[in-house]
Amino acid sequence: MKAKLIDGKAVAEQINGETAAGVARLKNEHKLQPGLAVVLIGDDPASQTYVNMKSKKSAELGIHSEKRILPKETTQQEVLSIIEELNNDKRINGILVQSPPPPHIDEDAIINAIRPEKDVDCFHPENVGRMLNGEEDGFMPCTPYGVMMLLKYSGINPDGKHAVILGRSNIVGKPMMALLVQKTKGANATVTVCHSRTQNIAHYTKQADILIAAIGKPEFVKADMVKEGVIVIDVGMNRVKDASHPKGFRNTGDVDFKNVSEKASYITPVPGGVGPMTIATLMRNTLKACMIQNKIR
Amino acid sequence: MKAKLIDGKAVAEQINGETAAGVARLKNEHKLQPGLAVVLIGDDPASQTYVNMKSKKSAELGIHSEKRILPKETTQQEVLSIIEELNNDKRINGILVQSPPPPHIDEDAIINAIRPEKDVDCFHPENVGRMLNGEEDGFMPCTPYGVMMLLKYSGINPDGKHAVILGRSNIVGKPMMALLVQKTKGANATVTVCHSRTQNIAHYTKQADILIAAIGKPEFVKADMVKEGVIVIDVGMNRVKDASHPKGFRNTGDVDFKNVSEKASYITPVPGGVGPMTIATLMRNTLKACMIQNKIR
Repeated sequence: MKAKLIDGKAVAEQINGETAAGVARLKNEHKLQPGLAVVLIGDDPASQTYVNMKSKKSAELGIHSEKRILPKETTQQEVLSIIEELNNDKRINGILVQSPPPPHIDEDAIINAIRPEKDVDCFHPENVGRMLNGEEDGFMPCTPYGVMMLLKYSGINPDGKHAVILGRSNIVGKPMMALLVQKTKGANATVTVCHSRTQNIAHYTKQADILIAAIGKPEFVKADMVKEGVIVIDVGMNRVKDASHPKGFRNTGDVDFKNVSEKASYITPVPGGVGPMTIATLMRNTLKACMIQNKIR
Repeated sequence: MKAKLIDGKAVAEQINGETAAGVARLKNEHKLQPGLAVVLIGDDPASQTYVNMKSKKSAELGIHSEKRILPKETTQQEVLSIIEELNNDKRINGILVQSPPPPHIDEDAIINAIRPEKDVDCFHPENVGRMLNGEEDGFMPCTPYGVMMLLKYSGINPDGKHAVILGRSNIVGKPMMALLVQKTKGANATVTVCHSRTQNIAHYTKQADILIAAIGKPEFVKADMVKEGVIVIDVGMNRVKDASHPKGFRNTGDVDFKNVSEKASYITPVPGGVGPMTIATLMRNTLKACMIQNKIR
């Protein structure tokens, strides 16, 4: 393999170390402890796992955390009252509602009910708008923020580079575009966004200095679609059938890692690339929320 | 000249005709009249002209309008009280503060104080975020919305086309990118954003099927920077010295119109292209605001 591997676990650990130090400083200097509330509606096993991972990581870093596990028949109004209670709870600086909620719940309405300064997922429209406007004292959504941190900690400066983003979801593609295009240190990329309606996608991927794949198609990006030396960030996480694996499937990204890694200069593995970053950036946002709410610089 | 001219005045008139019809319908069917308040702080002559144009167009289309002309020494707190009064005024559906305010006024704080459903400029972060998220029941900012309307009324469908945007301002470049990339009818473009940090800008402009220039550099885009058949939207409005003109200057766009129009398939003139659209889209947003606030579909 030619490419340097971008080790998401190692970067996440470094960021978590910094977060833990920040949390300790808040405790010592201000007698404050950041608090995160995670709301889970229903009993989806994957969601339960994520919620538990978030609680565990909070505990490790010294962050107070609360799980609100609600039965799947909880009404919209009941969820909204719990959000309102958490909005007014001084121990809680960050609130997130594990996605996806059951179908009878209007997820947008729930997100809109979270007070923007506690919206550590950065899904509230006010925070999304502040991000697009380039306000630096706001939040960044966890996955795109994780990608920005992977670049930064790998010594990659997007300034003047051509970043090509595959995918235009509200969770990854669009905020990724918003973050990379900003006139600010660590951004300043020329940005192209490709998606399902793009004609001749390889025409764009071949131009990428930085290629960010977030389209949910297993191993979509092939070696002949990229140029020598490209930096590849693979946000995909797809389950594909594989009889040779004990479980009958394996997880793979949106990039044909085996072949693309022979041309790339840097590449993230899947798993172990972007994945571990999302909890690290959530913890970082929770710390930031506590500092903002308590007017600490 | 080879290119078809996109006549902004004609398109604006068409849109204004539709707006006037919508206003008349509201009056007849619901006994409602949309209302727009324009706040001007200080006595900048250009700003006064803009404010008067908006009032005049409102009157023409049957929209109630109020001008609030405040002396330049008005305090931040006084402006905020006026915004609050207008927020609570049922006759007023749209509020805009003419930009730029005097330097002692915090423009962001004023914009943030406008109730989002009355923010017809679409500058409030909540509206910016809703636009990026692709929510269709929100506002679009006047200039980018005007560009989208110019394309639509010229029969140009951006779907699958490569739209290259020059500039990343919060008023034009970034919202333009947000609107063109959406998964929705009239959008669906592959979007590239170039700016002051872009290397070899001609590499990108030459690829453009649709080129949107909003960088504020007179006649920056030359004929050798575009391909045959490109669609050119020139958002620029620059004053350049010209001894041959009676006033000693002339207004020009960001595109070398004379030469680029020989290669383009469509092009907007400056003036008379994007300019006339911005008041038309403001009027449209005011009508929409009235309908939303009164729950009329």
